[in-house]
Amino acid sequence: MKKITTLAFIAVLLASSGIYAGWFADEKKPSSKNQHSDKIYNLKLAETWPSNFPIFGDATKNFKKLAESMSNGRLKIRIDSKNKHKSALGIFDFVKSGQYDLGHSGSYYWKGKDINTLFFTSMPFGMITSEQRAWFEYGGGQELMDEVYGKHGLKSIIGGSTGNQMGGWFKKEINSVDDLKGLKMRIPGFAGEIMAEVGAKPVNIPAGELYTALDRGTIDALEWVGPSLDLRMGFHKVAPYYYTGWHEPGTELQFIINLKKYRSLPQDLQTILTTAMKLSAYQMYAQSEYESAKNWENMKKTYPNIQVKTFPQPVFDAMRAANQKLLKKLSANNPLAKKIIKSQSDFLQKARAWTAISDQAYLNSQSK
Amino acid sequence: MKKITTLAFIAVLLASSGIYAGWFADEKKPSSKNQHSDKIYNLKLAETWPSNFPIFGDATKNFKKLAESMSNGRLKIRIDSKNKHKSALGIFDFVKSGQYDLGHSGSYYWKGKDINTLFFTSMPFGMITSEQRAWFEYGGGQELMDEVYGKHGLKSIIGGSTGNQMGGWFKKEINSVDDLKGLKMRIPGFAGEIMAEVGAKPVNIPAGELYTALDRGTIDALEWVGPSLDLRMGFHKVAPYYYTGWHEPGTELQFIINLKKYRSLPQDLQTILTTAMKLSAYQMYAQSEYESAKNWENMKKTYPNIQVKTFPQPVFDAMRAANQKLLKKLSANNPLAKKIIKSQSDFLQKARAWTAISDQAYLNSQSK
Repeated sequence: MKKITTLAFIAVLLASSGIYAGWFADEKKPSSKNQHSDKIYNLKLAETWPSNFPIFGDATKNFKKLAESMSNGRLKIRIDSKNKHKSALGIFDFVKSGQYDLGHSGSYYWKGKDINTLFFTSMPFGMITSEQRAWFEYGGGQELMDEVYGKHGLKSIIGGSTGNQMGGWFKKEINSVDDLKGLKMRIPGFAGEIMAEVGAKPVNIPAGELYTALDRGTIDALEWVGPSLDLRMGFHKVAPYYYTGWHEPGTELQFIINLKKYRSLPQDLQTILTTAMKLSAYQMYAQSEYESAKNWENMKKTYPNIQVKTFPQPVFDAMRAANQKLLKKLSANNPLAKKIIKSQSDFLQKARAWTAISDQAYLNSQSK
Repeated sequence: MKKITTLAFIAVLLASSGIYAGWFADEKKPSSKNQHSDKIYNLKLAETWPSNFPIFGDATKNFKKLAESMSNGRLKIRIDSKNKHKSALGIFDFVKSGQYDLGHSGSYYWKGKDINTLFFTSMPFGMITSEQRAWFEYGGGQELMDEVYGKHGLKSIIGGSTGNQMGGWFKKEINSVDDLKGLKMRIPGFAGEIMAEVGAKPVNIPAGELYTALDRGTIDALEWVGPSLDLRMGFHKVAPYYYTGWHEPGTELQFIINLKKYRSLPQDLQTILTTAMKLSAYQMYAQSEYESAKNWENMKKTYPNIQVKTFPQPVFDAMRAANQKLLKKLSANNPLAKKIIKSQSDFLQKARAWTAISDQAYLNSQSK
């Protein structure tokens, strides 16, 4: 009797404790009742993006196509875009509550709900895509993400990289830290906090109003993505300085899964689901790089006055100091944040030493 | 009657003409006879590598696990390593003849059988992994690979990137083109031909004898892979100069599929097969980067005398000239080679312009 009680207690503890959610997610035993059946599972996915949003929206379409084809129609995925569900930043709650089974969004949008979700998109002065994916897949990143999301009854999977994001479009050149003082810039999130630390005035403006705000001088600068998505926004027509990146060196979107729903699927469909997500995430990076290459060539030809600039070292030094200060603040009284920051920083150090003698050395030797 | 004859003629033409093989491979109509059945398909895969070869061998194990799990056991994959089939470089013929259904190897190994297979692994002074995968997936690379392999009744799919390969281990420093004259170096394939053009003596020595050959001075230098796989070979103990890469900037392995077998599978299993291959290919790159980061840190600590060097510009200039000369020779009287070389060169130009203002600019600005 004693033994049963203890086991029952552990079972309740495991079921209620998000920390162990990853165990269930990865368990290998198929749920026998659904094996070999033709039962159809209808899953609803909510995405942050509007209908037919390029690249990001292609990733969810690609995922749907792969999952439905591999399951021979046993999985049916309905994708609701922002136009339908009306809440770009409601994805986390939608999937947590079970209103939707799946989501496609960005982890750092949820930092107001759980600060530890901040670390799984891209961190200022952090890893580039090849480094960060090594961390996610082999360096402990997925396990840390499972720990953070498991607490909410969720699982998060890589959702596609935009590549290295550009530092943004500026109307004036930045030659010193002083040039940042009072600068009105659209730059949201953690990078915005760094900008505030060095004296800029980060502001938030809806996407649809950005071009006019920049044109009329309501703002002096903004960051968006990179050539893959900037071209259609037209910023290059009103702000000639295009700064290279520092704040999102390898922006990885996310798929979110409701864990209860996930566990209710037969094992083969679970693997189909996560495999389709991961492959479409990897392919989205290839598409981003392709579109950026194509659009950057186009932008340079059409607008030869665009000037690519990199912040001077003293500006980076000030930003890096602000970044360290803010990370230290995040670590205080938050052991999990401390653990994630340490894991990323330790891996970045060794991964960057390798990148330095491989891709970086090669690129530099061939661009002389 | 006339009409039937014409159709039959076209059918025979299509079936025998490899150029159109890709049409069959991508056709969307499921082969109805196998739908919704629990029929088990046993597929045999031959890999170039010996049993339990790290990273490369993990890619095939990962593929097998994904394919079997997603198909709920309807696909059973048997992996035969070199130890079993005894012919590391027999993979192409094994799969072409149908002796094996699948293979895992490197496309450039088949240049003696079909020179146009040379272009689908990595070319000297070519694309890095992120650029080349954009080309494969969105820039027309897969279609060109289909054209080349379709002629042999085969389909080739990306099989995993080693990342940027190091230029190799040298016993003496290379300060000028003269230092390459007569240099005995283990460097196979097209890169070896470039080395010969600039005066070196490329030699081929079995892997098991490389360490002794380098130690005793039978050879002066060799290239292998990079820290991910070099560490266990011990070359750093006998050749202190570790040169950065130029000859294989983004080595992509390949999965090979017998097209006739592929077409005989139900549509869902076809998608499961190629999806499992692609995801394990993408994950192999993450693993390579992870292992290289870890091993490079280890090598630097254990052997602080390793000196990382980059060839001086005049050496690169001579090698690049030799590369251009050899590519021109390959293009002569080979319209398909000419088309592939042009596609790669055009895409490299725009992709590199983007890499230059994204990852390269970021890496350089943060390593000052």
